Amino acid sequence: MAAPPLSSSGTGPSHAWRLSLAWDGTAYAGWQRQPNGTAIQEVVEKALGVLFHGDAIDARAAGRTDAGVHAALQWVAFDPPAAIERRRLVASMNGLLPQDIACLDAVPVPLGYSPRDAVARKHYRYRVLNRAERCPFRQRFTWHLRTALDVDAMARAAAHLVGRHDFSAFRAAGCGARTTVRTIERADVRRDGDEVQLDFVGDAFLRYQVRIMVGTLLDVGLGRREPDDVRAILASLDRARAGRTAGAQGLWLMDLEPR
Amino acid sequence: MAAPPLSSSGTGPSHAWRLSLAWDGTAYAGWQRQPNGTAIQEVVEKALGVLFHGDAIDARAAGRTDAGVHAALQWVAFDPPAAIERRRLVASMNGLLPQDIACLDAVPVPLGYSPRDAVARKHYRYRVLNRAERCPFRQRFTWHLRTALDVDAMARAAAHLVGRHDFSAFRAAGCGARTTVRTIERADVRRDGDEVQLDFVGDAFLRYQVRIMVGTLLDVGLGRREPDDVRAILASLDRARAGRTAGAQGLWLMDLEPR
Repeated sequence: MAAPPLSSSGTGPSHAWRLSLAWDGTAYAGWQRQPNGTAIQEVVEKALGVLFHGDAIDARAAGRTDAGVHAALQWVAFDPPAAIERRRLVASMNGLLPQDIACLDAVPVPLGYSPRDAVARKHYRYRVLNRAERCPFRQRFTWHLRTALDVDAMARAAAHLVGRHDFSAFRAAGCGARTTVRTIERADVRRDGDEVQLDFVGDAFLRYQVRIMVGTLLDVGLGRREPDDVRAILASLDRARAGRTAGAQGLWLMDLEPR
Repeated sequence: MAAPPLSSSGTGPSHAWRLSLAWDGTAYAGWQRQPNGTAIQEVVEKALGVLFHGDAIDARAAGRTDAGVHAALQWVAFDPPAAIERRRLVASMNGLLPQDIACLDAVPVPLGYSPRDAVARKHYRYRVLNRAERCPFRQRFTWHLRTALDVDAMARAAAHLVGRHDFSAFRAAGCGARTTVRTIERADVRRDGDEVQLDFVGDAFLRYQVRIMVGTLLDVGLGRREPDDVRAILASLDRARAGRTAGAQGLWLMDLEPR
């Protein structure tokens, strides 16, 4: 007896699902499975395994996010072993996932869909709580800096990062990307009440790139560097010239723009 | 040898301190010391004990807050066993307190100062996350209700609570207050994005009063009661007529107004 064809007209699922997830990254070792710590991928795949009665399911995200980084939106796709109704999928995932990970939505996508390839632009935000007192409600979600930042100087410095550049000076030592050229379309710095928020929109980012850019811009905001220094750091292609990697807890993957 | 006089002109401290604290109440059994769970009072008194080298210090708050309830502002006063500079007091408390409790400020007040007696009005806010999906960033700080609430009906119902009333119908079974008459100056309900927020300003509140009022107003918002039912419930003085006690995690002590 021939196996049923796994085509759109057969008995197998005719499409994959793309979940929109949001998470508080505090408790996790980032998206990607790894030997130490609990990865979000592991938790999501475990929930999918329970939902689909033990089948091992591979969950594919639009990118790695580092340990402790938050996602207001991350796409995660998987090829389901059986058909499922959209509302039941979303409700079940929210029932199976821990409280610090939420499934906001699910949309059908072609089998084998790669969220990474589907993303044209990512929007990251870095939130600095910039006041003397700490805030118990935002300690998980912001980086706390007591010294008042010079936001205008930071904004001038950030402008040098916009455009198509080799960002070698702003990537982690262990970054294995083949090319270090990336395009940043937006790099804004603004004060919003007691927070300073840095927004970056670009096609893709190198490992730790946003956090190293933030660390460098914070040096400018603290008066330790001049805004124009950022141009020289960028041109140097030298990681040692840039600032420290800012803490993960202030970083948010905010939004994804499809191709 | 005679002990030095503990007067304002002697060597003892001439004034008490009133701390402005804020806390994420998730991990705590409320303000007041009790046999089960960790009370915020206990944590604050322990920090003061370390700061003042082991002296047992009594910390007095402007009121009890229930387990799991948050405070954007709570006043806590104590009579210090030794003089201390304001900035050092605030910085030391923030160093000694856990991350989910913050000391925002400290002001000198007369010895024996009672925050409870000093407060003319309290402002409580109840935050309902009113959307289908949960939110990982607000799960500690809001009560999640998936069904869309009728905010206009809730606002009409809340208006019946404003004024000087006997709130017997809206107090916990174990509430030991001598009088059940309280004055509510403001009871507002509004939608703010995906949240419905209920604000109550009054001279004082009975045990669980805000949460029982919220539970009753949520019944109205869900169409289970009419707005005018609240007037009848109030007049009945019967706790059994009112709604359920809404969850603690949505409740915030927002502000205190001095006499």
